[in-house]
Amino acid sequence: MAQLIDLNADMGESFGDWTMGNDEALLNVVTSANIACGFHAGDPDVMAKTMARAHENGVGIGAHPGFPDLQGFGRRRMSITPNTLANMVRYQLGAARAMAAAQGLKVRHFKLHGALSNMASEDKDIARTCYEAALSVDPDIILVVLAATPMQEVAQELRARWAAEVFADRAYNDDATLVDRSIDGAVIHDPELASSRILAMLEEGAIISESGKRIPTPIDTICTHGDTENALEIARQLRKKLKSAGFTLAPMEGTGKAG
Amino acid sequence: MAQLIDLNADMGESFGDWTMGNDEALLNVVTSANIACGFHAGDPDVMAKTMARAHENGVGIGAHPGFPDLQGFGRRRMSITPNTLANMVRYQLGAARAMAAAQGLKVRHFKLHGALSNMASEDKDIARTCYEAALSVDPDIILVVLAATPMQEVAQELRARWAAEVFADRAYNDDATLVDRSIDGAVIHDPELASSRILAMLEEGAIISESGKRIPTPIDTICTHGDTENALEIARQLRKKLKSAGFTLAPMEGTGKAG
Amino acid sequence: MAQLIDLNADMGESFGDWTMGNDEALLNVVTSANIACGFHAGDPDVMAKTMARAHENGVGIGAHPGFPDLQGFGRRRMSITPNTLANMVRYQLGAARAMAAAQGLKVRHFKLHGALSNMASEDKDIARTCYEAALSVDPDIILVVLAATPMQEVAQELRARWAAEVFADRAYNDDATLVDRSIDGAVIHDPELASSRILAMLEEGAIISESGKRIPTPIDTICTHGDTENALEIARQLRKKLKSAGFTLAPMEGTGKAG
Amino acid sequence: MAQLIDLNADMGESFGDWTMGNDEALLNVVTSANIACGFHAGDPDVMAKTMARAHENGVGIGAHPGFPDLQGFGRRRMSITPNTLANMVRYQLGAARAMAAAQGLKVRHFKLHGALSNMASEDKDIARTCYEAALSVDPDIILVVLAATPMQEVAQELRARWAAEVFADRAYNDDATLVDRSIDGAVIHDPELASSRILAMLEEGAIISESGKRIPTPIDTICTHGDTENALEIARQLRKKLKSAGFTLAPMEGTGKAG
Repeated sequence: MAQLIDLNADMGESFGDWTMGNDEALLNVVTSANIACGFHAGDPDVMAKTMARAHENGVGIGAHPGFPDLQGFGRRRMSITPNTLANMVRYQLGAARAMAAAQGLKVRHFKLHGALSNMASEDKDIARTCYEAALSVDPDIILVVLAATPMQEVAQELRARWAAEVFADRAYNDDATLVDRSIDGAVIHDPELASSRILAMLEEGAIISESGKRIPTPIDTICTHGDTENALEIARQLRKKLKSAGFTLAPMEGTGKAG
Repeated sequence: MAQLIDLNADMGESFGDWTMGNDEALLNVVTSANIACGFHAGDPDVMAKTMARAHENGVGIGAHPGFPDLQGFGRRRMSITPNTLANMVRYQLGAARAMAAAQGLKVRHFKLHGALSNMASEDKDIARTCYEAALSVDPDIILVVLAATPMQEVAQELRARWAAEVFADRAYNDDATLVDRSIDGAVIHDPELASSRILAMLEEGAIISESGKRIPTPIDTICTHGDTENALEIARQLRKKLKSAGFTLAPMEGTGKAG
Repeated sequence: MAQLIDLNADMGESFGDWTMGNDEALLNVVTSANIACGFHAGDPDVMAKTMARAHENGVGIGAHPGFPDLQGFGRRRMSITPNTLANMVRYQLGAARAMAAAQGLKVRHFKLHGALSNMASEDKDIARTCYEAALSVDPDIILVVLAATPMQEVAQELRARWAAEVFADRAYNDDATLVDRSIDGAVIHDPELASSRILAMLEEGAIISESGKRIPTPIDTICTHGDTENALEIARQLRKKLKSAGFTLAPMEGTGKAG
Repeated sequence: MAQLIDLNADMGESFGDWTMGNDEALLNVVTSANIACGFHAGDPDVMAKTMARAHENGVGIGAHPGFPDLQGFGRRRMSITPNTLANMVRYQLGAARAMAAAQGLKVRHFKLHGALSNMASEDKDIARTCYEAALSVDPDIILVVLAATPMQEVAQELRARWAAEVFADRAYNDDATLVDRSIDGAVIHDPELASSRILAMLEEGAIISESGKRIPTPIDTICTHGDTENALEIARQLRKKLKSAGFTLAPMEGTGKAG
């Protein structure tokens, strides 16, 4: 049987009269869309439209909550108490669910954005706060976690559905964290290299770090970016290679949570 | 059998470190709470807490969406296109539903706030846009309409559940609109007068205008205010009189929508 | 002596990570920049950078305040009391002046944005509120007014410096108002036509309406748009024609206010 | 000659329809007001009104900028780049200056708010960024610094006017930092004790820490709070004692910057 794999990308990051990203091109390449929820990007109109277009393209809809900081695009760290953070997550996820429900659609997955995601990947308590908040609104939602990180542990501890994610265009350290962007080679620009690297990871069932270390992990979804032409090219190349290798591309289903 | 009646009031209008209103006192008097959704007042924390307290007091939870204008408290008119307005309503209602769902609670009713409510009461298209948006998220939600106005017509045309509302402390014109606040006698300050007037309306099944005209209408819920001690006193007096007259106070159930 | 003329355009309309407009190209064409002040577009970083680039290009710096409505880009009408409106104008102008002063620069002119400008052009009281507010912060600032409209009257009544503006790409009604965008021919797309029309107006010292009517008025500045390639082409063509016709392009100086 | 001393307090922290603080009572007690600038609290109307009332009471006007975070009241740390932070400070100070100028008034001093102040007191680079930004807008403004901290060093290095501040109701560590609020005795509740402690500090020209250590420092202004009745009582008692001891209460003038 063909192995399933999902490609995900951030979308719906326009706001009001300002456009961002290349959503239309991406919708032909990816199978899951992480849609901004109005706090760091997106607005109710953008959310509704992005969901409609995703659905028309057979792309799975996900909520992509972030910090309440439009100017900083959710990339500035904020020190927010767990209770407030949980309520912010619930609020954004609820808003996303309503925008989907109004069109007969469903929010399938949940992925943290920007600084909030970085903080959650470093601190299990923050990850747990956000994931519990999401599950309190929808116990069946698929939590997208960075593969082989504490985020994955938290999702498992919560007995939630989860999907492990690797990055198409980023080099890995030996502890499964991403090589810092400031370091040479941290970002992979060559579509060929990016694609073959991901295929090797899928084949081995492991993250392959820059040093060559294998970190065994399930891999359910691959994060692609579409904000540059090069990134879009990587995504396209990856899709092609995955298909050639016999993978079936489909929106993530998540593992865990028997039933 | 005892006739049911509902008392409703706006609540959850605090924001961040700023408090507003007298929610704790009101929760002992009313049976339905119209909870701000973060656009004109309220924030995710305030929403969550207000819903919890409402539930503990047996008070029905409602969403109270408004214009995106914190400084103006949603009382400044904005010219917003129908599509955008519909999405704003969906977003706020969805957020409210999630804050409730996370606590095992349910948003039962829907009432427009401030300038948005005023505009909807004057323009059936705006009312329809907002009501359809709410129903697209939750087809069973109870729409609170100003009794005997075009809002009620729209709710009926949409075959939705609805509850007709009269005001405890406001005088009526002969066309069922409220006497403008700038006119003497528009606001009723005497708890005794306010209460006996409402009882008369309930008995006759009609709004009684300032001139004495009777405008037949169902009356499901009575709007009380709690932002002044006097208003709170009116609400308390009204509750007492309604009970003495044999009414049973309970969260609104809505009429319409057989089934 | 060569007659002076100014070309103005809106700029600094990016926000956070979102870019808008073609400021770099425009800075080679226009002589005055209307810079958004953070309420409807722009943020402190965008303001600072746009002012620096304007100065490097010899382009005059202006404040371009609007309604507090990022999502609506200041194009949605809001009903705001005169006192609040005045304070909003002061706040934005003050912020702009500080961003300029920090670089040793000066805000020379003041032009209202979007729905606020539309409302001020229809209602002398709103124009007066905004202009008095601007003058209370800087009595020497040049008020940009729509030529031959009540805005111009107000500026004159206030004995302020003012500059009369006509539009390069918009047809005029016989009362000096703009033909509504929804009407065929309201927007002029042909650079040749737009340029020769403006030259004729300058030569005759009058707005020439669509019907051919002449409305005598001083013309100090011409509004160009740069949000489309076509609009930028109109601006470039206009600049070329004005120079050929012997005009000297320079930042507006304003008329009125002897001394 | 009578020694001058200033009492300062945060004011203008209302927002829209939400009120906060006890500004009217405080204006009879303090001599300098730190007025919120719209990012963490305050809005253009509140700023204008607070400045007018301060002036009527002979109270000096100061700008009190903070992080752009209304819900968090500027008390949540945000990681903002120096360039953006500088522009945010300029923007807020400029807005405050315009609100004052429109009434013929002047912003005399500058004090950082909340989390931004905490961060600046721990990190000289942040203090320098904020202070340089303020001075780029107004080179004569008085920088309020926590006495005997790196903030004071930065102000001196910048050869700015500055005023050293101690707290009326907070205990000090031996390094001139405040005892953490979570520790018993960190906040002084007894008006008598708070007053006599401040008088001792003024007499000795030193901060007196909890352990009794003397940290020599100029003391130009004393921070009082007015958000509780007790805090207001401390401020009143302190004012009385200072007058009895022969001090003249007057808006801060700042030291440094010969001229």
